[in-house]
Amino acid sequence: MQIRGQYKIVNFAKLKQSVYCNYNLIILPQIEYMKFPVKLSVICFIAIGVTGRLQSQQQLKSKIVLVIHGGAGIIEKERMTPQKEAAYTAALTDALKAGYNILSKGGRSLDAVEAAVRVLEDCPLFNAGKGAVFTHEGKNELDASIMNGKTLSAGAVAGVTIVKNPVSAARAVMEKSNHVMLSGAGADKFAASAGLEIVDPSYFFTEERWQLLQQVKKEDSLSKSGGHSYNDTRPANIYPDSKFGTVGAVALDAEGNLAAATSTGGMTNKMFGRIGDSPVIGAGTYASNATCAISCTGWGEFYIRLVMAKSVSDMMEYGKWDLKNAADEMIMKRLPALGGDGGMIAVDRNGNFTMPFNTAGMYRGFIKADGKPVIGMYKDIKE
Amino acid sequence: MQIRGQYKIVNFAKLKQSVYCNYNLIILPQIEYMKFPVKLSVICFIAIGVTGRLQSQQQLKSKIVLVIHGGAGIIEKERMTPQKEAAYTAALTDALKAGYNILSKGGRSLDAVEAAVRVLEDCPLFNAGKGAVFTHEGKNELDASIMNGKTLSAGAVAGVTIVKNPVSAARAVMEKSNHVMLSGAGADKFAASAGLEIVDPSYFFTEERWQLLQQVKKEDSLSKSGGHSYNDTRPANIYPDSKFGTVGAVALDAEGNLAAATSTGGMTNKMFGRIGDSPVIGAGTYASNATCAISCTGWGEFYIRLVMAKSVSDMMEYGKWDLKNAADEMIMKRLPALGGDGGMIAVDRNGNFTMPFNTAGMYRGFIKADGKPVIGMYKDIKE
Repeated sequence: MQIRGQYKIVNFAKLKQSVYCNYNLIILPQIEYMKFPVKLSVICFIAIGVTGRLQSQQQLKSKIVLVIHGGAGIIEKERMTPQKEAAYTAALTDALKAGYNILSKGGRSLDAVEAAVRVLEDCPLFNAGKGAVFTHEGKNELDASIMNGKTLSAGAVAGVTIVKNPVSAARAVMEKSNHVMLSGAGADKFAASAGLEIVDPSYFFTEERWQLLQQVKKEDSLSKSGGHSYNDTRPANIYPDSKFGTVGAVALDAEGNLAAATSTGGMTNKMFGRIGDSPVIGAGTYASNATCAISCTGWGEFYIRLVMAKSVSDMMEYGKWDLKNAADEMIMKRLPALGGDGGMIAVDRNGNFTMPFNTAGMYRGFIKADGKPVIGMYKDIKE
Repeated sequence: MQIRGQYKIVNFAKLKQSVYCNYNLIILPQIEYMKFPVKLSVICFIAIGVTGRLQSQQQLKSKIVLVIHGGAGIIEKERMTPQKEAAYTAALTDALKAGYNILSKGGRSLDAVEAAVRVLEDCPLFNAGKGAVFTHEGKNELDASIMNGKTLSAGAVAGVTIVKNPVSAARAVMEKSNHVMLSGAGADKFAASAGLEIVDPSYFFTEERWQLLQQVKKEDSLSKSGGHSYNDTRPANIYPDSKFGTVGAVALDAEGNLAAATSTGGMTNKMFGRIGDSPVIGAGTYASNATCAISCTGWGEFYIRLVMAKSVSDMMEYGKWDLKNAADEMIMKRLPALGGDGGMIAVDRNGNFTMPFNTAGMYRGFIKADGKPVIGMYKDIKE
């Protein structure tokens, strides 16, 4: 990962250098021959231009924002212990700060969303990276994707098993290959060759997720299907994390560029190479500077069928919807109309953002230019 | 696969039965008590209603259309032999007829697109099913997807190796599982359990594709990257099929329902679990009765980044573009603007269709209610 914390400074230096060079080499000699009123006008003109550009950068800087989620589902205050709530709050705050440290120094939204998602991947509380749920075979198969709104570049991995941070593998696919989506052993092989941190599959083991697999397997073996059902219709409220465990981040940086990233461990007891929406560009993740950046969490199959993230972007681009109304239309109306549920985080190019969900709760948070992290889990925080 | 060739007959019988039942049980006794002018009006009203419904069905039937493609690329008359041209024409005609046999009897667009794609998969001329190109390891890994515009249901498989007709595996995922996308060994296992025809991997072997792999490997081994490059930038015109080999079909049926399907053998010498746009809903395939049905063929990575198929649909839904202008905007402007190339077939809910491509040619064809297949390869047929 390349953190570009010095980006703002480099930019300002370049800007100054450029103005001085132009002034010395081109403008200065010509001004010498001008009459005083003209000379004054030209100097004022240059000064206004430079000030305007600096002001514009300042305005953009004041709009920087990072929004994150840690999955949607049956997250209710009554089920939560104070200790668990504190742990989630701390982890989400860490993720926000990791991204903010980049954005506040003029860094790129792409770096910020990757940094935030890496923190959530490294935390065993969330179903992504360390803490991922187990497949039927007792393995951890991870999916992730990332998209750069400035260039419409994108990268995704599906079913990686030895990459510590799948979101960084997705970024490597975007930046170090001509491909967008790599899967399975090929994706693992690529990640290793790209120099990413490789871990033994046992790194992803957590006792809690292992017990969840045993519990789900036991109940499946008692069910009619004998466990190997392709039609797993167990209610989402029994195993919320198994269906909705996903993390993600979206950001707007001081340069006005948008980016989005999503990462997941998939579904507990999942079989048969199932790919959800998280690694599918347009479904679980999308970013375009023309509209917005989006990361989704929910019942992946419905998000793929609705091409969820791109739909919101297109409603803005072609239908002139605003971000909040477009996201609400998809999450609160069209998603449940098909029978799906979940949530979404989205930010537009003006720094407006929204975090709708049609479930009981969604782990989420945001941080703006003031650097104050705001965390939410239930239906209680204002955006 | 369930072919519903008798659908029209069943429907008409039901319609008649329904009218007679209503007439005998409800309307007839009440008419007895009416005065003559009122009686006449009621009878006329019923007659107009029935005629109107029959006319409306007739109008829809007259709009049935099936459009197919067999890949876009460097397809130029100068490079084609009369024998090869005749073979392609015959295969495309067979595919059109297979779908038309269903549509003309009032069958479903979903059945028609599956039937047409199966014919193209079974033909070794196209890079899908039998005739698929080889991966670096000398294997055939196949991708396919299908979508029902009426229900927004969708299914996809990525990297199957033993399924004779991947498009039918995609349909089985849609109809016999709760998932949308299955990959690798899991997808193969699912297809077998769903009762699809399973073949030995050697079934997909064709001498021509094998020689192509040897040729590409040889040239790669002479190149700087030593063959295992993630950045394969060899010009598309050297191995057009290796980059653009895909087949697909879109259709509108007499019930006014749209459907789309796509199938591919991927890229020659592809490695590292690369997934292209063909199995990605929204990118290579999309269908919604609200707008259109689309199947794409081209440089998959660009189609994923543009979320190609859904973009055209959304331009129609939210921006009120017509089908042709929306498809042209994406294929002729936005795709090359990013550096990509390829084509698309698309049909809207009124039976209008379009087949744009920004390459030298695209194997394609269409058939309408009159049952006359029209085939094209170069830039020469009128839609």
